[in-house]
Amino acid sequence: MSLFVQKYGGTSVGSVERIEAVADKIAGFKAQGHDLVVAVSAMSGETNRLIGLAQEISSAPTPREMDVLVSTGEQVTIALLCIALHKRGIKARSYTGQQVQILTDSAHMKARIKHIDVDKIRADLSEDTVVVVAGFQGVDEDGNITTLGRGGSDTTGVALAAALKADECQIYTDVDGVYTTDPRVVPEARRLDKITFEEMLEMAGQGSKVLQIRSVEFAGKYQVPLRVLSSFKDGPGTLITLEEESGSMEQVVVSGIAFNRDEAKVTVVGVPDTPGAAAKLLAPIGAANIEVDVIVQNVSADGTTDLTFTVHNNDVEKARSILEGVAIELGAKSIKTDPKVAKVSIVGVGMRSHAGVASTMFNALAKENINIQMITTSEIKIAVIIEERYLELAVRALHTAFGLDDDKISEE
Amino acid sequence: MSLFVQKYGGTSVGSVERIEAVADKIAGFKAQGHDLVVAVSAMSGETNRLIGLAQEISSAPTPREMDVLVSTGEQVTIALLCIALHKRGIKARSYTGQQVQILTDSAHMKARIKHIDVDKIRADLSEDTVVVVAGFQGVDEDGNITTLGRGGSDTTGVALAAALKADECQIYTDVDGVYTTDPRVVPEARRLDKITFEEMLEMAGQGSKVLQIRSVEFAGKYQVPLRVLSSFKDGPGTLITLEEESGSMEQVVVSGIAFNRDEAKVTVVGVPDTPGAAAKLLAPIGAANIEVDVIVQNVSADGTTDLTFTVHNNDVEKARSILEGVAIELGAKSIKTDPKVAKVSIVGVGMRSHAGVASTMFNALAKENINIQMITTSEIKIAVIIEERYLELAVRALHTAFGLDDDKISEE
Repeated sequence: MSLFVQKYGGTSVGSVERIEAVADKIAGFKAQGHDLVVAVSAMSGETNRLIGLAQEISSAPTPREMDVLVSTGEQVTIALLCIALHKRGIKARSYTGQQVQILTDSAHMKARIKHIDVDKIRADLSEDTVVVVAGFQGVDEDGNITTLGRGGSDTTGVALAAALKADECQIYTDVDGVYTTDPRVVPEARRLDKITFEEMLEMAGQGSKVLQIRSVEFAGKYQVPLRVLSSFKDGPGTLITLEEESGSMEQVVVSGIAFNRDEAKVTVVGVPDTPGAAAKLLAPIGAANIEVDVIVQNVSADGTTDLTFTVHNNDVEKARSILEGVAIELGAKSIKTDPKVAKVSIVGVGMRSHAGVASTMFNALAKENINIQMITTSEIKIAVIIEERYLELAVRALHTAFGLDDDKISEE
Repeated sequence: MSLFVQKYGGTSVGSVERIEAVADKIAGFKAQGHDLVVAVSAMSGETNRLIGLAQEISSAPTPREMDVLVSTGEQVTIALLCIALHKRGIKARSYTGQQVQILTDSAHMKARIKHIDVDKIRADLSEDTVVVVAGFQGVDEDGNITTLGRGGSDTTGVALAAALKADECQIYTDVDGVYTTDPRVVPEARRLDKITFEEMLEMAGQGSKVLQIRSVEFAGKYQVPLRVLSSFKDGPGTLITLEEESGSMEQVVVSGIAFNRDEAKVTVVGVPDTPGAAAKLLAPIGAANIEVDVIVQNVSADGTTDLTFTVHNNDVEKARSILEGVAIELGAKSIKTDPKVAKVSIVGVGMRSHAGVASTMFNALAKENINIQMITTSEIKIAVIIEERYLELAVRALHTAFGLDDDKISEE
């Protein structure tokens, strides 16, 4: 008999029928004798409906009041799920973030959890009661309602699992696990039985949007075993674990291929190779809230160097106009932009101890005549920037080159 | 400069546009330098939408979870109203019942307020902040969310006014005051400038559904001056006051005509005139949650008596089938029912000191050939049961007979 913290997302509780299905699922776990704490999101569409009401009134609604407003979405779900559980003869009790309580800082709309009081939850569990907690929300020290930001229900689930030392935190979503790459691009993509936290972070950061990245960091930090499963069909999902526990994975060099289509490239040509030049160029970009992804600067040859970075392709013109003044000031030659690039990354803890991963990657791309424009690496990731139109081709080529296709290997 | 507690009902905050209109109204009061505490209902339709969701899941949803569910309705309104006030440059702060806090007993869906903590409200008022409180809801001693039952937002307003010793509690609604009778039945019906708490209780209890009856009792008990106004058009509304303060009203014998169309009559004929017979007949009716309105039993002549009472006409068949067994047991002769009766009442503190009110009433009805089936009286009310088809005729006749028509008198 285990203690599971389960999190059900917006589509999983998107209608009365879906809430009933979740109640059935929970009833099944209770029949097996497990203890359950369940964190839920707002019914899909509800948070957007509430935000829409506020925006009809004001283009800049107050963050404190936005939290009061949107936190009602999860409160509706906890009540409905408890009613559905009671109908099935299962003891259940709902809690808002304020009631648990989930204490956060006071950063409205992006609060961070400081402490969770588990006394009430433990008492309920000892009486065989399913505890249903509103995800995404908490309360600050002055009693103000706070929210954790979009996707924060995942974080609520992981934080509850950490505070309760649960056996597993199960994130129910609309996909049945983490895949080697996006199955819409590579039909041979396989569901991974296991992946490490580090790999998951690289995959999530690269655009595999299965889990909110903060919740993965949180789970890694507190060593909470995290499992991603589908609430629509049965299956083991993907377990996200510490590297040490996942011996079987060591055989695999590359676990997955991540990609991001929406990148744009900005190059400042002929930057004088002096200390602080890169900082002077990037500081105003950051100040304008433009997120910079990859940054590459090569070694200097003639006393000048080229600095290249990527931004979201919506931001490329804004970035260029910001840079123009700074670039002239620094004595740079010109600014070039290319809105039509994409990033492809191979991710895997296995590559740490394997030479030759990079050359396998580059060879596979060369064989398809795909030119590599930029390269960056981390311990468990190699990312390249290529022309956007080659994205699908590159992902498929790499998926095959690293033996990830469905019929080739099984990672266990 | 005064301290006003204002309550805005569901239709007053029924849309984003209506919420903006309420914010404008509040801005006007602030411009005059008043301190304001505002209690709001859920946007009209929202509570029913939430109850509908619960009922899709269960025909008997758990009261505790129903309170968690429906209390979100008012929480949405407080946030939206504060956002609208902030847009107008007005300092405002929202509170749920839990945050204020409004402490209640634990009777979910029909909780009663035990205590209101006004410290936070006083602190906000001293900083010129409009305090916006979710109506209808509170929290019990264990931190469970409770609600006060339908219409409970009025009670929240009155309780806040009592706790804060406000100068006036203003109930904004979709009517512009309390009328001598329903203007849909009597076009000559006039808005009353003043009415006493006692009269208001009799009027409300008789079907003039302007204010929740509990809130009037509450206001009377704590001597909170209560004013009913329209949130849709300007005007003085109707002030509900203590009798002592409203000397001008004494001149008026009857303040208003109330009526209820939905009554049905049940008569148990030939009940042996023994102690406890009436109790034996009515106990099972109460136990079945059938509300009994008027009860009349006349003096006994031949050792038996007839007991007549009225119930809602939806309940009349249920009442009959419950009574059949008990009546036989008691040795009663028969049970007669009539689902087509109505009640008409005249209400006024003035009738205490005026003889002849009853005869004026009965004469007016006789002149229209309306037969009186039952009569009951209280200190400030005389109610008669008549055939339902004569209802409008009776109300109009009485409205004229007691000088209430628009062009006849002004009560001040």
